[in-house]
Amino acid sequence: MISKNPQLGKNRELQHLLTTEGLPTSILLQILDTAQTFVGVTEREVKKVPLLRGKSIFNLFFEHSTRTRTTFEIAAKRLSADVFNLNIAVSAQSKGETLLDTVDNLVAMDADMFIVRHSQSGAAHLIAKHVRPGIHVINAGDGRHAHPTQALLDVFTIRHYKKEFHNLRIAIIGDILHSRVARSQIHALTTLGVPEVRVIAPKTLLPSKVERLGVRVFHDMKSGLKDVDVLMMLRLQKERMQGAYLPSSEEYFKYYGLTPEKLSMAKQDAIVMHPGPMNRGVEIDSAVADGSRAVILPQVTFGIAVRMAVMSILAGQPV
Amino acid sequence: MISKNPQLGKNRELQHLLTTEGLPTSILLQILDTAQTFVGVTEREVKKVPLLRGKSIFNLFFEHSTRTRTTFEIAAKRLSADVFNLNIAVSAQSKGETLLDTVDNLVAMDADMFIVRHSQSGAAHLIAKHVRPGIHVINAGDGRHAHPTQALLDVFTIRHYKKEFHNLRIAIIGDILHSRVARSQIHALTTLGVPEVRVIAPKTLLPSKVERLGVRVFHDMKSGLKDVDVLMMLRLQKERMQGAYLPSSEEYFKYYGLTPEKLSMAKQDAIVMHPGPMNRGVEIDSAVADGSRAVILPQVTFGIAVRMAVMSILAGQPV
Amino acid sequence: MISKNPQLGKNRELQHLLTTEGLPTSILLQILDTAQTFVGVTEREVKKVPLLRGKSIFNLFFEHSTRTRTTFEIAAKRLSADVFNLNIAVSAQSKGETLLDTVDNLVAMDADMFIVRHSQSGAAHLIAKHVRPGIHVINAGDGRHAHPTQALLDVFTIRHYKKEFHNLRIAIIGDILHSRVARSQIHALTTLGVPEVRVIAPKTLLPSKVERLGVRVFHDMKSGLKDVDVLMMLRLQKERMQGAYLPSSEEYFKYYGLTPEKLSMAKQDAIVMHPGPMNRGVEIDSAVADGSRAVILPQVTFGIAVRMAVMSILAGQPV
Repeated sequence: MISKNPQLGKNRELQHLLTTEGLPTSILLQILDTAQTFVGVTEREVKKVPLLRGKSIFNLFFEHSTRTRTTFEIAAKRLSADVFNLNIAVSAQSKGETLLDTVDNLVAMDADMFIVRHSQSGAAHLIAKHVRPGIHVINAGDGRHAHPTQALLDVFTIRHYKKEFHNLRIAIIGDILHSRVARSQIHALTTLGVPEVRVIAPKTLLPSKVERLGVRVFHDMKSGLKDVDVLMMLRLQKERMQGAYLPSSEEYFKYYGLTPEKLSMAKQDAIVMHPGPMNRGVEIDSAVADGSRAVILPQVTFGIAVRMAVMSILAGQPV
Repeated sequence: MISKNPQLGKNRELQHLLTTEGLPTSILLQILDTAQTFVGVTEREVKKVPLLRGKSIFNLFFEHSTRTRTTFEIAAKRLSADVFNLNIAVSAQSKGETLLDTVDNLVAMDADMFIVRHSQSGAAHLIAKHVRPGIHVINAGDGRHAHPTQALLDVFTIRHYKKEFHNLRIAIIGDILHSRVARSQIHALTTLGVPEVRVIAPKTLLPSKVERLGVRVFHDMKSGLKDVDVLMMLRLQKERMQGAYLPSSEEYFKYYGLTPEKLSMAKQDAIVMHPGPMNRGVEIDSAVADGSRAVILPQVTFGIAVRMAVMSILAGQPV
Repeated sequence: MISKNPQLGKNRELQHLLTTEGLPTSILLQILDTAQTFVGVTEREVKKVPLLRGKSIFNLFFEHSTRTRTTFEIAAKRLSADVFNLNIAVSAQSKGETLLDTVDNLVAMDADMFIVRHSQSGAAHLIAKHVRPGIHVINAGDGRHAHPTQALLDVFTIRHYKKEFHNLRIAIIGDILHSRVARSQIHALTTLGVPEVRVIAPKTLLPSKVERLGVRVFHDMKSGLKDVDVLMMLRLQKERMQGAYLPSSEEYFKYYGLTPEKLSMAKQDAIVMHPGPMNRGVEIDSAVADGSRAVILPQVTFGIAVRMAVMSILAGQPV
């Protein structure tokens, strides 16, 4: 479905950020290390650096998401870029213009970077392959395919709390089947050398042959959480809570919702992550979400630094 | 309904602006005097001051209002802040996230200030009590409860034209029952020492026991407007114009609509105010709205300076 | 319908840009020459000049158009202005406020410039006549009347590729009847001395007595395109594609859609223009749209420079 990945340039430098699949360890570490330098910026009195001054960054959101759009807008403004928000669902697309015509027009207006969210897998790839050198694309979520900045902020958070990747046992819990977040996480974690990545989910919410991604599969929390260092919860989409995939959200919570009891099966110093927005009482209990092991809000904070890092690395590439 | 007001800090300095109720005279005067210094800024060639450079201000509008949002956005940009507009009605809330989870996420993105409009009384209070020190909340209208910046720009306008508060007779006219603006005005005016605040309205549009707020009640314009220095008109919401509250908008205009004839019952130098947007021909006649006694557009101008004042006072508080 | 044009001041300097009709050649050339100086800005590392720093520019869009709004927003931000986007369709207008009350309020907030798009012809004129000196209005499209910045970027593009106007044969092709773009183009081209402007359209898509605008009328492409230097395609609105005006979009494409075959009837070095968004396969074939004679994307690029030029000329006028 998705053709050859254009995200790496001739010298294997990052030209677009489309997926964590196939991203070299060196680039993953470059992003994490650059993000580390930006963590301090947001604590300054004046939370801005002039790295992207005069650059035009377009939030091209074909799928609605105030939260994700806002994180990119904040990151871009802290880098002093000019940001333009285009909610394309209600615009030119409805006038019959094609996706690439829309992009061509924005490129003609001297766009420097596109942040793309689209309900179809491969949309950001398509744009990245189409634009001329010097213009960069960041995938902010495409269909069920990838959401690489979410995965990068997750691994940043894990490194922050656990220091190393090579000695960790990490479990991803929930709707793996429909989750672009889970796919991006798995690729990033395995590349960074995490020796054991587990997925815990009912069979109806697992892709077939998921083991091929290099994960261990569990269907119950008790065995799946044993000796785990990091728990990465997934959001359960409302539309999955009834019908074909699950009997009900109450049933799901009973078996897979993270309660203090289930959490106690993991290591004592395990951390709990969630990409947000949370469904309290569905995939996570409030006692855990607000508890001492949750690092869900630090994830958000680090997310700004990670997005600043990706933008500044891309903008700094020679054409 | 609304618990202890967190808007004052330990030393009774302003930490949030939630309501004019209980706001000390000294703080009201601090805001008015600071606003006075900003009136000049908007007349400069470059209408900006760098006081809030690098600060992130979030317009959190759970209730739609382009006009009010724009005034805060203008004020924030003239203070050189970065402004983020979040129309929450259509966003994470619809994904089932709670109000405080949304706020926690934005705080984690290093928000410095929230401008909150919500259809439920107490929403801004709830947020103010929740956030950590150093983050400030401005109530931009909550249910029927309060709209303090509107009341502050009103008293700024009155002081501009009448110089003193202690010798004034002021009438608030219209739908007192449903008006957060009226409640905030009454608290501000009585605190500032206005000796006589009147309300003029049909019985169906008055709260029970409104006298307890320290106002004199009138049901007809002729007696209510006699010897009045300031007329503060209220907007009549469309949904009140028929049914239980009023027979029709024509009937309302006949008895309570401000015409030149009714205005002539007030003092010769009385001023006419309106918070906008006006329903011409319902609560106010165009001959008055566009006449020499109206100070409705100066209210708007002063509103920017007042909002700049509140923001800069809040941002300047030691944590 | 539209009363005396307020766009020229006492000394015939540009005070508002409302229409290309009656705009003196000297002002047309002033805009084109100023735009030329801005073409370079967008190629700089930092694509910004401080000409409008501290100015408040309001995009007042009563009719939805992300593309046009974005071009003005980009132009304004590259001039360092503060830009405020107001989608009025969903705002105060729905609360019953009149157009001029909305404008008065924004003027009271110290607006410096309005970019106005409205479905009614004459809306921008009405605002321009209403505001006080020193406040400027740019018409971004009003009903079927005018879209002057589109026409200006078109003549800029023509001058860029053809150097002179006095030796050109130019054809405007498509739905002339409903097109504010076509009307503005015709006025600009005839003022600049183009000796022959043709319109090519079926009778149902031509205004009656269109010849009075100084154009030659053709109903078929073969004769209309003969020896033409410039082809200006118009967008065919979806609602015209069926019913009273046209039998179907396929039928329209057969007779008026620009294919390589039809293009070969024009001069060998003819250029093809389109205001966008394109309906590929309706008014234009992809082989032409993406071909070597198309200058459709350069039009977009020049459009930013032209809008920067208009804004900076207006803002620079003495009050």
